[in-house]
Amino acid sequence: MKMYETLASELEEHVAAGILKAGDKVPSVRQLSQQRKISITTVLKAYSLLESRGIIESRPQSGYFVRKVIRGRPAVHAIEPEAAKLKPAPVASNVEISQLVLRTLKTISRYDAVPLGSPYPDTSPFPLVKLSHLANSLVKKSNDWGILNDLPPGNIHLIRQIAGRYFLNGLLVDPAEIIITVGATEALNLCLQAVARPGDTIAVESPTYYAILHAIERMGMRAIEIPTNSKTGMDVDYLASILISENIAACMVMPNFHNPLGIVMPEENKKKLVAMMTQAKKPIIESAVYNELYYADTPPSSLKKYDTEGYVLHCSSFSKTLSSAYRIGWAMPGRYRDKVENLKFVNTLSTSAIPQMAIAEYLTQGGYDQHLRKIRKAYQQQAKIISSMVKRFFPAETIISEPAGGYLLWVQLPEQIDAMRLYNDALERKITIGPGNIFSNTGNFNNCIRLNYSYPWSGEMEDAIITLGKIIANYQ
Amino acid sequence: MKMYETLASELEEHVAAGILKAGDKVPSVRQLSQQRKISITTVLKAYSLLESRGIIESRPQSGYFVRKVIRGRPAVHAIEPEAAKLKPAPVASNVEISQLVLRTLKTISRYDAVPLGSPYPDTSPFPLVKLSHLANSLVKKSNDWGILNDLPPGNIHLIRQIAGRYFLNGLLVDPAEIIITVGATEALNLCLQAVARPGDTIAVESPTYYAILHAIERMGMRAIEIPTNSKTGMDVDYLASILISENIAACMVMPNFHNPLGIVMPEENKKKLVAMMTQAKKPIIESAVYNELYYADTPPSSLKKYDTEGYVLHCSSFSKTLSSAYRIGWAMPGRYRDKVENLKFVNTLSTSAIPQMAIAEYLTQGGYDQHLRKIRKAYQQQAKIISSMVKRFFPAETIISEPAGGYLLWVQLPEQIDAMRLYNDALERKITIGPGNIFSNTGNFNNCIRLNYSYPWSGEMEDAIITLGKIIANYQ
Repeated sequence: MKMYETLASELEEHVAAGILKAGDKVPSVRQLSQQRKISITTVLKAYSLLESRGIIESRPQSGYFVRKVIRGRPAVHAIEPEAAKLKPAPVASNVEISQLVLRTLKTISRYDAVPLGSPYPDTSPFPLVKLSHLANSLVKKSNDWGILNDLPPGNIHLIRQIAGRYFLNGLLVDPAEIIITVGATEALNLCLQAVARPGDTIAVESPTYYAILHAIERMGMRAIEIPTNSKTGMDVDYLASILISENIAACMVMPNFHNPLGIVMPEENKKKLVAMMTQAKKPIIESAVYNELYYADTPPSSLKKYDTEGYVLHCSSFSKTLSSAYRIGWAMPGRYRDKVENLKFVNTLSTSAIPQMAIAEYLTQGGYDQHLRKIRKAYQQQAKIISSMVKRFFPAETIISEPAGGYLLWVQLPEQIDAMRLYNDALERKITIGPGNIFSNTGNFNNCIRLNYSYPWSGEMEDAIITLGKIIANYQ
Repeated sequence: MKMYETLASELEEHVAAGILKAGDKVPSVRQLSQQRKISITTVLKAYSLLESRGIIESRPQSGYFVRKVIRGRPAVHAIEPEAAKLKPAPVASNVEISQLVLRTLKTISRYDAVPLGSPYPDTSPFPLVKLSHLANSLVKKSNDWGILNDLPPGNIHLIRQIAGRYFLNGLLVDPAEIIITVGATEALNLCLQAVARPGDTIAVESPTYYAILHAIERMGMRAIEIPTNSKTGMDVDYLASILISENIAACMVMPNFHNPLGIVMPEENKKKLVAMMTQAKKPIIESAVYNELYYADTPPSSLKKYDTEGYVLHCSSFSKTLSSAYRIGWAMPGRYRDKVENLKFVNTLSTSAIPQMAIAEYLTQGGYDQHLRKIRKAYQQQAKIISSMVKRFFPAETIISEPAGGYLLWVQLPEQIDAMRLYNDALERKITIGPGNIFSNTGNFNNCIRLNYSYPWSGEMEDAIITLGKIIANYQ
């Protein structure tokens, strides 16, 4: 155990023993450093670890405090398929989450609400008419149209175009590794099934994208949540410490522009994670759906870049850049490629042909990069606006993420705010939000919300943020 | 046990004991009837049961003979997910089957072979250009395009059109029960997962559509094959006799224009099956993908028609009538509706939007019935041609099905013919066939093949049948 880990454990024990109580201020970093004769860095690392475990929290200009909900270790969510079978109404918590998510998404479209809770990008700047026109021309020209050309691995023109884009972004990919799927959602499901089996434990980020939790539960596996923050991404050291003891079968991560945190895993940790898992011969499933939406000058690197032995199963899609409605994603499953191809065939036979041919043709003709540059610039601009609005109209203790890509803002509200209550109250005012509850089984994020800023900023959005701020103020 | 069952068991024991050996002629029906003082009907029923169990076979003008491969009871296929996990190359037999199926399908397109082995209809008479044009117009008109309108249960216009078609065909359906899926393949997978869990035993027809076997294996369940023939469809009495003892969790059937047998389950057996399963509170998953391709004047009835308590999960698609490449199917899961909707969301999020809107608009504008009448007539005509060709060029002992709908012919070759060998030899001559091996785990159909007659009859097809006949003749 490293020194900062020892220090963190010691403090954790103090909290568990009630020496430090919920709401108490913990010793300042300088104070502890002087007292213990250890470096400030070590104390900061210990506090950061405790923060990521949900033991303490930092409050701007005030220091660190013990959080209300105390958890000594990440929660393990056990799956009970029996319960699901015996009762018509499912009871397991993840099923409730997926129903909540589905209900949230439905309300977005049906109640004509301000879609701050949507996970999907605004499609208005997307080249939908062009894509449709291309598809139409191709169908007219084709005299050999049918499913046979699109059986797994999928449309060969599309596969080559995808491989070409990776090359452009600095990753050399063998087109033969790519399998087209029904969005990244299917890719994640298939990859998970290819590498693990019912009862297995899968390490995930905390918080994580809810579809990852759904996939794990659905297959009768268990999710163990690993502390995740902007300094480490998924905490690789923590994962290393439990990899054997918890018998982790695989991990599922979103290293770039994480949903919902918006963070990027530091480069050295990407390398470390892949090296560690490769050495342990354990697979990593990587979701890279926001990779093309970077605000910097260059794209972020994938875990796949460091994959020397095929243990990284990389999943992505066009859902964030050309509309989720096409349902075109893909997997690059490394050494599990044939297994994933077979599962794809069994799960949905093949992926819809028209969107595959349309996107392949669109990528061939060019214009995609121009489109991407346009939306990246817009998202970056809109990130600044929504951030300043939230800072202005939400309580002072609010902490917000600093997205380096994508179009999702993570907002941590004061501890006592119940995000589900806010979700319901906001819905009454025709505003949707993504309640933090859906991104974890630990309950650690029930005072957090996720906001979508892909839509051009408008008076309606501004009003929505102001209204949310007022509702929250009334809770206090 | 009924008298014919006792008689069948007795004969089976004789075979097992070696009193009657493979290739031996069994006593003629008249002979046994006289000897035992039992009715001819009872003997016929006993022989029919033995035949369906693969113990004996009838040879035209010769009587009944003991088959080579002896099986006392339907094979139970145990699933070993461990094996699949430990080895990169899957070893379980169903996985081999799905790989064989996928390879077969790929060869159809890649080797430019005569597609007698294809499960898909010829798309040339399908209104693909019209559908594409409609989609294009809709996308242009739409200012609110995106995934939100197509989240589960799916495009509401399409759902209403589907409900309307059931009404037209004599089945009153609540649109709220319908969930759009990625073809019937996804619907079958989701329905199965909604009603059963790993380790459960699922009753299936023998032979059955391979995707049903794949779905069962994939979920770590066990398939038990129930004798199936044109007189009974799936043998409901047999199923009744093992329902409790084998702890059957659910059954999966294709009662109309069964793939690969082409048979229709008699009306009284449809009623009986639904009544029995409903009384036992056990679900039936019904695949109805060929229902619209009937040759008679009126459509066949679904099991869903007799479903009083929601135990029938009905699955279908537009794959056989408007092309599989769209990947548009649906489930009507009765009392399991909410569970299936949730699983759909988790599995693929939603179904591709463009094909949904295109088909909805096509059905609204009309012309579908005219299209169906045209292809039904063509298939009926082509069924006659291929049947007469097979009778003419295949060995005299060949037995063929008499399809009342669809576009698939089932051909039982002489016992000693190895369908996989024929598959490989045919492929060398650029002819594909569907080897019987892929439709069962019992090995009972390894001398059978399935032929596709959706394509307009041509000299090339005729040559292919003649070539197949010659290859088979060389084996003898």
